[in-house]
Amino acid sequence: MCAFPAQPPAHPFDDDKLKEECGVFGVIGVADAANFVALGMHALQHRGQEAGGIVTHDPETGFNSARRFGYVRDTFTKADVMATLPGSIGIGHVRYSTAGSKGNTAIRDVQPFFGEFAMGGCAVAHNGNITNAAALRRELIERGSIFQSSSDSECIIHLMARSIQRNIPERMKDALRRVEGAFSIVAMTRTKLIGVRDALGVRPLVLGRLGESGGWCLSSETCGLDIIGAEFIREIEPGEMVVIDAKGVESFHPFDRRPSRFCIFEHVYFSRPDSILGGRSVYETRRAIGVELAREAPVEADLVCPVPDSGTPAAIGYAAESGIPYGMGIIRNQYMGRTFIEPTEQIRNMGVRLKLNVNRALVRGKRVILVDDSVVRGTTSRKIKDMILDAGAAEVHFRIASPPTAWPCFYGVDTPERSKLLAATMSEEEMRVWIGIDSLKFISLDGLYRAVGEAGGRDPRNPRYCDACFSGEYPVAPSDMIEKGFEMKAAE
Amino acid sequence: MCAFPAQPPAHPFDDDKLKEECGVFGVIGVADAANFVALGMHALQHRGQEAGGIVTHDPETGFNSARRFGYVRDTFTKADVMATLPGSIGIGHVRYSTAGSKGNTAIRDVQPFFGEFAMGGCAVAHNGNITNAAALRRELIERGSIFQSSSDSECIIHLMARSIQRNIPERMKDALRRVEGAFSIVAMTRTKLIGVRDALGVRPLVLGRLGESGGWCLSSETCGLDIIGAEFIREIEPGEMVVIDAKGVESFHPFDRRPSRFCIFEHVYFSRPDSILGGRSVYETRRAIGVELAREAPVEADLVCPVPDSGTPAAIGYAAESGIPYGMGIIRNQYMGRTFIEPTEQIRNMGVRLKLNVNRALVRGKRVILVDDSVVRGTTSRKIKDMILDAGAAEVHFRIASPPTAWPCFYGVDTPERSKLLAATMSEEEMRVWIGIDSLKFISLDGLYRAVGEAGGRDPRNPRYCDACFSGEYPVAPSDMIEKGFEMKAAE
Amino acid sequence: MCAFPAQPPAHPFDDDKLKEECGVFGVIGVADAANFVALGMHALQHRGQEAGGIVTHDPETGFNSARRFGYVRDTFTKADVMATLPGSIGIGHVRYSTAGSKGNTAIRDVQPFFGEFAMGGCAVAHNGNITNAAALRRELIERGSIFQSSSDSECIIHLMARSIQRNIPERMKDALRRVEGAFSIVAMTRTKLIGVRDALGVRPLVLGRLGESGGWCLSSETCGLDIIGAEFIREIEPGEMVVIDAKGVESFHPFDRRPSRFCIFEHVYFSRPDSILGGRSVYETRRAIGVELAREAPVEADLVCPVPDSGTPAAIGYAAESGIPYGMGIIRNQYMGRTFIEPTEQIRNMGVRLKLNVNRALVRGKRVILVDDSVVRGTTSRKIKDMILDAGAAEVHFRIASPPTAWPCFYGVDTPERSKLLAATMSEEEMRVWIGIDSLKFISLDGLYRAVGEAGGRDPRNPRYCDACFSGEYPVAPSDMIEKGFEMKAAE
Amino acid sequence: MCAFPAQPPAHPFDDDKLKEECGVFGVIGVADAANFVALGMHALQHRGQEAGGIVTHDPETGFNSARRFGYVRDTFTKADVMATLPGSIGIGHVRYSTAGSKGNTAIRDVQPFFGEFAMGGCAVAHNGNITNAAALRRELIERGSIFQSSSDSECIIHLMARSIQRNIPERMKDALRRVEGAFSIVAMTRTKLIGVRDALGVRPLVLGRLGESGGWCLSSETCGLDIIGAEFIREIEPGEMVVIDAKGVESFHPFDRRPSRFCIFEHVYFSRPDSILGGRSVYETRRAIGVELAREAPVEADLVCPVPDSGTPAAIGYAAESGIPYGMGIIRNQYMGRTFIEPTEQIRNMGVRLKLNVNRALVRGKRVILVDDSVVRGTTSRKIKDMILDAGAAEVHFRIASPPTAWPCFYGVDTPERSKLLAATMSEEEMRVWIGIDSLKFISLDGLYRAVGEAGGRDPRNPRYCDACFSGEYPVAPSDMIEKGFEMKAAE
Repeated sequence: MCAFPAQPPAHPFDDDKLKEECGVFGVIGVADAANFVALGMHALQHRGQEAGGIVTHDPETGFNSARRFGYVRDTFTKADVMATLPGSIGIGHVRYSTAGSKGNTAIRDVQPFFGEFAMGGCAVAHNGNITNAAALRRELIERGSIFQSSSDSECIIHLMARSIQRNIPERMKDALRRVEGAFSIVAMTRTKLIGVRDALGVRPLVLGRLGESGGWCLSSETCGLDIIGAEFIREIEPGEMVVIDAKGVESFHPFDRRPSRFCIFEHVYFSRPDSILGGRSVYETRRAIGVELAREAPVEADLVCPVPDSGTPAAIGYAAESGIPYGMGIIRNQYMGRTFIEPTEQIRNMGVRLKLNVNRALVRGKRVILVDDSVVRGTTSRKIKDMILDAGAAEVHFRIASPPTAWPCFYGVDTPERSKLLAATMSEEEMRVWIGIDSLKFISLDGLYRAVGEAGGRDPRNPRYCDACFSGEYPVAPSDMIEKGFEMKAAE
Repeated sequence: MCAFPAQPPAHPFDDDKLKEECGVFGVIGVADAANFVALGMHALQHRGQEAGGIVTHDPETGFNSARRFGYVRDTFTKADVMATLPGSIGIGHVRYSTAGSKGNTAIRDVQPFFGEFAMGGCAVAHNGNITNAAALRRELIERGSIFQSSSDSECIIHLMARSIQRNIPERMKDALRRVEGAFSIVAMTRTKLIGVRDALGVRPLVLGRLGESGGWCLSSETCGLDIIGAEFIREIEPGEMVVIDAKGVESFHPFDRRPSRFCIFEHVYFSRPDSILGGRSVYETRRAIGVELAREAPVEADLVCPVPDSGTPAAIGYAAESGIPYGMGIIRNQYMGRTFIEPTEQIRNMGVRLKLNVNRALVRGKRVILVDDSVVRGTTSRKIKDMILDAGAAEVHFRIASPPTAWPCFYGVDTPERSKLLAATMSEEEMRVWIGIDSLKFISLDGLYRAVGEAGGRDPRNPRYCDACFSGEYPVAPSDMIEKGFEMKAAE
Repeated sequence: MCAFPAQPPAHPFDDDKLKEECGVFGVIGVADAANFVALGMHALQHRGQEAGGIVTHDPETGFNSARRFGYVRDTFTKADVMATLPGSIGIGHVRYSTAGSKGNTAIRDVQPFFGEFAMGGCAVAHNGNITNAAALRRELIERGSIFQSSSDSECIIHLMARSIQRNIPERMKDALRRVEGAFSIVAMTRTKLIGVRDALGVRPLVLGRLGESGGWCLSSETCGLDIIGAEFIREIEPGEMVVIDAKGVESFHPFDRRPSRFCIFEHVYFSRPDSILGGRSVYETRRAIGVELAREAPVEADLVCPVPDSGTPAAIGYAAESGIPYGMGIIRNQYMGRTFIEPTEQIRNMGVRLKLNVNRALVRGKRVILVDDSVVRGTTSRKIKDMILDAGAAEVHFRIASPPTAWPCFYGVDTPERSKLLAATMSEEEMRVWIGIDSLKFISLDGLYRAVGEAGGRDPRNPRYCDACFSGEYPVAPSDMIEKGFEMKAAE
Repeated sequence: MCAFPAQPPAHPFDDDKLKEECGVFGVIGVADAANFVALGMHALQHRGQEAGGIVTHDPETGFNSARRFGYVRDTFTKADVMATLPGSIGIGHVRYSTAGSKGNTAIRDVQPFFGEFAMGGCAVAHNGNITNAAALRRELIERGSIFQSSSDSECIIHLMARSIQRNIPERMKDALRRVEGAFSIVAMTRTKLIGVRDALGVRPLVLGRLGESGGWCLSSETCGLDIIGAEFIREIEPGEMVVIDAKGVESFHPFDRRPSRFCIFEHVYFSRPDSILGGRSVYETRRAIGVELAREAPVEADLVCPVPDSGTPAAIGYAAESGIPYGMGIIRNQYMGRTFIEPTEQIRNMGVRLKLNVNRALVRGKRVILVDDSVVRGTTSRKIKDMILDAGAAEVHFRIASPPTAWPCFYGVDTPERSKLLAATMSEEEMRVWIGIDSLKFISLDGLYRAVGEAGGRDPRNPRYCDACFSGEYPVAPSDMIEKGFEMKAAE
């Protein structure tokens, strides 16, 4: 949904990475819920760095909200902002900016969205993407709804406003049955915290408990529980809705049951390495990818280097499996940030120098294996190759911890259009030549499935994960995009 | 000189680390010098995160300056700020805040300092500490000088103002001959860029050349050259002054020659791993420290983990030498920042959780070796131990990449007073018990000297480095501090 | 609608004055419409000082909007803000804050409001008050509308969204036929500028033409035309809607015709003295009020002083008619502003001293007539009396340029609840004693009508103006307020 | 000293007015002195609108200072700023910006200036201008002083730093005996508040007492006393120094006695109308000027209008004496402020329209007398004439409440260079033709002296006031300016 974050990215080449769109967090049953929400959002910051919003409810002041551009650490740490967010229940959302938003209305696109219904207010924070949003929006406007944002997620709240159900959880079920695509939602009423995942369970969502206080929380990832010392209870199941209030947690399954299809890229790149997804440590999975990669694509070399920071666990795994020494050949500047004014006298690759510096003394004269998580456009792979060769490396080999990214994601991840994806137009060998390196190997799709615990690799008739970005097999037809002319992969 | 930076620190436990006070950078002979200076300061940001200043000179507007609190990326990237800094010569300074500055006058303490003399203006940026500053200040005030800051460095410009020499480089020599302590200085006049290191060469300073433009630059570390694509020419020698103008670089040795005593802690922690100090790669030195440590202090274990981020190279070395697997047992939050409002319900170790999270799946049930760069107060060592044990580690062993820090630094590094240094009051075993871990080992002083290339270890009669923080042997008597009651180590 | 503006008020005792809620302005057919709108809003700033908003439309960027707290001069003068508002059509709104808005959502209440309909977008800026807004809002929410603000004016846009008409002007007629109360509206579509006044014409709205460019504009008052050099064409008639586009001005009369009831307080206080209302100069009317007052309520005295600034024209009239010298007995501080921190040692009447100072040399020993525009709570009348007596005046006589304000306004003016109005509970003599002055006289309602040009005074069966705040005769029953328990004046 | 204030000016045509440079204020013996100082500065804001500074002293925190651009109401009302200024003694300064200051160093020019001497610190706030500052600065720099600002006032603190006297008041006497020109100074040490006026007493300075608290204050004008409820005790005498501490007020006369020459323009324009200067009400003096003007320069007309706001008292006097009705023909916008972006389609006289609007209904068809305080460049007189004629006035007559301004001021007032002063190059009749009006009359210098109480007019051998801007007779030779080539009036 968004192309170029105004804020410094988590990964030095984020502009050449797939990007998660959002993280969601909610808490109920604690004093000063907003402070917990801010901490949860901080832990989920890697899922969305452009803006964030918090809604809380307090019996005296009603619903309160604050939406801000920038990092959580710079916005929801200010006493004057937090003082406007009283209450013992609250939800929050971190997000990227909307691509191509024009003018200056973007703050309106920052979630949570809020609606006042006859039976009370409801705030909704959504991670994912609604694939039939354009059609829903047209229909709703024709019937008299007024949209305040350009966000697809706003459809949910308008569908709820028009539901004939008499309470908010029922209205939400009604609304979500009209919605296609991927969603993990955290919502709240005056007294209830609600969590929902779509039937395929594409995006993550977990439930936690704050032991001493008796409070509950929902978070996109377990790292959001860790930061506030909450106990990880379980994942919300695909197709499940939980409604939490003073009496406890109630569970519903409002959608037709289907085999789940969790996003495999959450394991590869999106989630934090210290999170647990589907019972598996993300760090361990990434290390296992490196091990698989060393087995699938060995090469004689002197040094295994991660492309910082996301390539690190796979590089550790590759080094351990291959026996080739591990080292930090590329040093990342801790203070990456906004764009500097480039000196008028041309400096080549300024953008890269601001973020990374090659550890010349280490790589000089060596055959270097660089482990990166993915190749999207390939532009930064070329820049890194230049830097390493300039520093005197003898050979450069790329090992990529994911299969070739050949298809866009329509379930809540920002991907370039298909024609911009290097792997959509080139073979592995063509890519190697284009990047200009000695060898290039991607992990196989089967190898990736093995690394996430499917010992037999991918079952082509019933794959356990959504891997559309690699395979082109979309578990939900992206109807808005098809209407706009997107061509699905021909059935084989 | 400063205790608690307002800005997010580079190291998650910076408040329990020794901190470098400053970085200096200068450039001459390029269009829009300020943009180069900003980039150089950005590369040196780890040396001072609280504030920065730039002075430039342009024939039309004269001397221009801007001083700002905050990161270079957030201040000297703004077009409106940079537009006020025209000229082809400029210097910059990054710094920590002054401890105990009261009121709101601190921006006055941000360097470079500037003085208008009869023969023209001069700006001075100073890294180090003047150990007789209090006495000099008293004398200057008595003679009618008006100080504008609480910074010791301002003495230099007042001494220059009162020199009877007829040009600025000579006045600077005059002034610096009155000064005791450590200094690496970058200064400028309308037409000259000046670099000086004290006779012992305690702080680093390097000379670089911008090939295409014919420009020259000075930087605290080589990483400041790399970022702008400058070629590393050489280090400024201890006791050397270089004066650079359109005709080239002229070299002077205005001080009495003495054996050099470069700060060994620059290798251990202060400098960036991709910098070259004294012809040695900092990364390689740190890795070598890890190797030495594995030899000096082996232990049976399942996992070697760095305490991020500064412990990483030593941990890689320790793992390689010991054969114990290397892994990321502690994950650092990329978005560390300002202080969050802590939820009213008490959360234990909130401060740590904001910055780090244990990779529970990795450490559970394992005997873990944690490699850290130093122990100062020891408070964070305890917190990390708690986190690792909470996550289920079977044993916790600390290996420290420096000897026990038992003495304060008076040469430009912020250290707690001696009584706050854990190693000043406890033996290694007492520290182990106090931290509450299974074993604790520091590298020996000889081991550290070996790692920096002294095969024979430390020569006690003629040590090549300043290691006062470990040995208590101060190469320059800290006269102001002695006047205030500081007790030197008794001669042995 | 709002009680205490955060910004410095136009009148030094605005917190004891009735306050206009809003001003509206629109322009079509000019390059950079937003700059014209900003100027118009600046000229109308006295009608609303808390916040302002501008919407423009440009074929390339679509609808753009900016909403800001603070004065127009401080917000819509910034190049970066104005650059986000391209287009040749635009509307703007200045407003006071909403009383009792809690939390931090108030920016949502800043107009213009915007709705995207199936046939395109529409922005609406509203001056006035909808007296059946609560009932409308309830009904709309029940039918699935989601309100984004706490403003009554938002009803209009939701009613339009649900209209079955096929174009925006028709939808607006539909919507406004459901609305009770007072409104002067400026609205815009992609290509049309729309102006409407309610059937009674309670609030002003005028049409102007920008000669050279062929552009048209709408403004609450003629002073909004003067500032941009537009020619005053005519008032929009009560009950009229004008739709302006490239083809010119089209006029409609969508509401049932009724005798008009323009707000008489616009003449007394709200409008700027250089505006023309109903063909009459506001300045001249206020001067004429002073003349009437001198005839109705003469007194022997030495000096006629205005209470600055709104009492000035009436004081000039009183002095001229009575032959008593006119002088500035009270000097206003030009730099009135935000609240100062009061020194801990008590200073009596600090609030007043910040804004006014008595010209002691002038009033000492004199019998002083103070001319003010109105008495609301009476609190500031007491403070002024204290100041004048402290300065040594021999006698103090108040002459008030409006009848006693005994009833709240429900048509777009912020009035205290009835029990807080001094004149609702006291006779003229009781008020005189309570304030503590030698004499107190209000102009009679007939005298006020004579001053606005009704030679025969007020026709009680068919008054030409809305004078409910004086007479308690409300031309439109305030249905929401009656539902909340407000008691209308008993029919006589 | 400054040309174009960044902040909205007090007078709508301030850019065509002489401008006072500064106001000074100090207080001792009260809790939270800074709050009193801020209020005093607010009352003196008309004397300097560009920036302000406060210094206080508190035994615990020492000297504290804050300097800010902008209005006092916007800066020294903020709790976080005021919290940095503890103490029971404090001084403040309001000022215009320095003309031609380049780069971004101007905050350094904001007073008070501070110096730390061997016997303690001293802060100095200066109203006036030192006419031999350039020579003093050269000498001081040669002797080793480092200037931090481009302000002439900084010389005082450096001269003090080099004095051999042993206490601060004596050092100040020493320093001021070296200084030529005009000065009213408020200074402070840790325990003393000091006030000084130059021997001629060119700029005002008054002493006040805070009854209940026993505190004392010094202020440029009496309006600074009124705002905090202080009693006006007396003026500081020309050539007097007062030193105030816990024991009371001590008076010295350190300079050679000379006949005083108070600035007559303070009566005409600079001071606030509610201030008392030399025992005379400024308002009454201005009204008397109008009376004199009506006698000296009568004309048949229908209306007397002030040019707002400074022409008002003289217009009232003119109307009263002439019997011609007084009216507000020009209405001032209360919200004057920063520069708006001018619409691309040219609007004539935009600058004027933002600030003023003609009351068309009042002036149409009338013969109008406009009373203004002065004519400097004459540019705005032409614009006002245009506005009045555009509105349909039959005749326009200007009456000016000061003699022709033909000479620049060198004693603390910002005047254009002589060639820019209309009266320096034209006769009264030439000016009339150039402005394009029916008649133009300035008050005579004798008439002005009568209005300020000199019944016999000006004594040419011994004039009681400094009237150099009218007469060209400078009571102190402006030595720096003469060195730069300024030509004094030839002796007659």
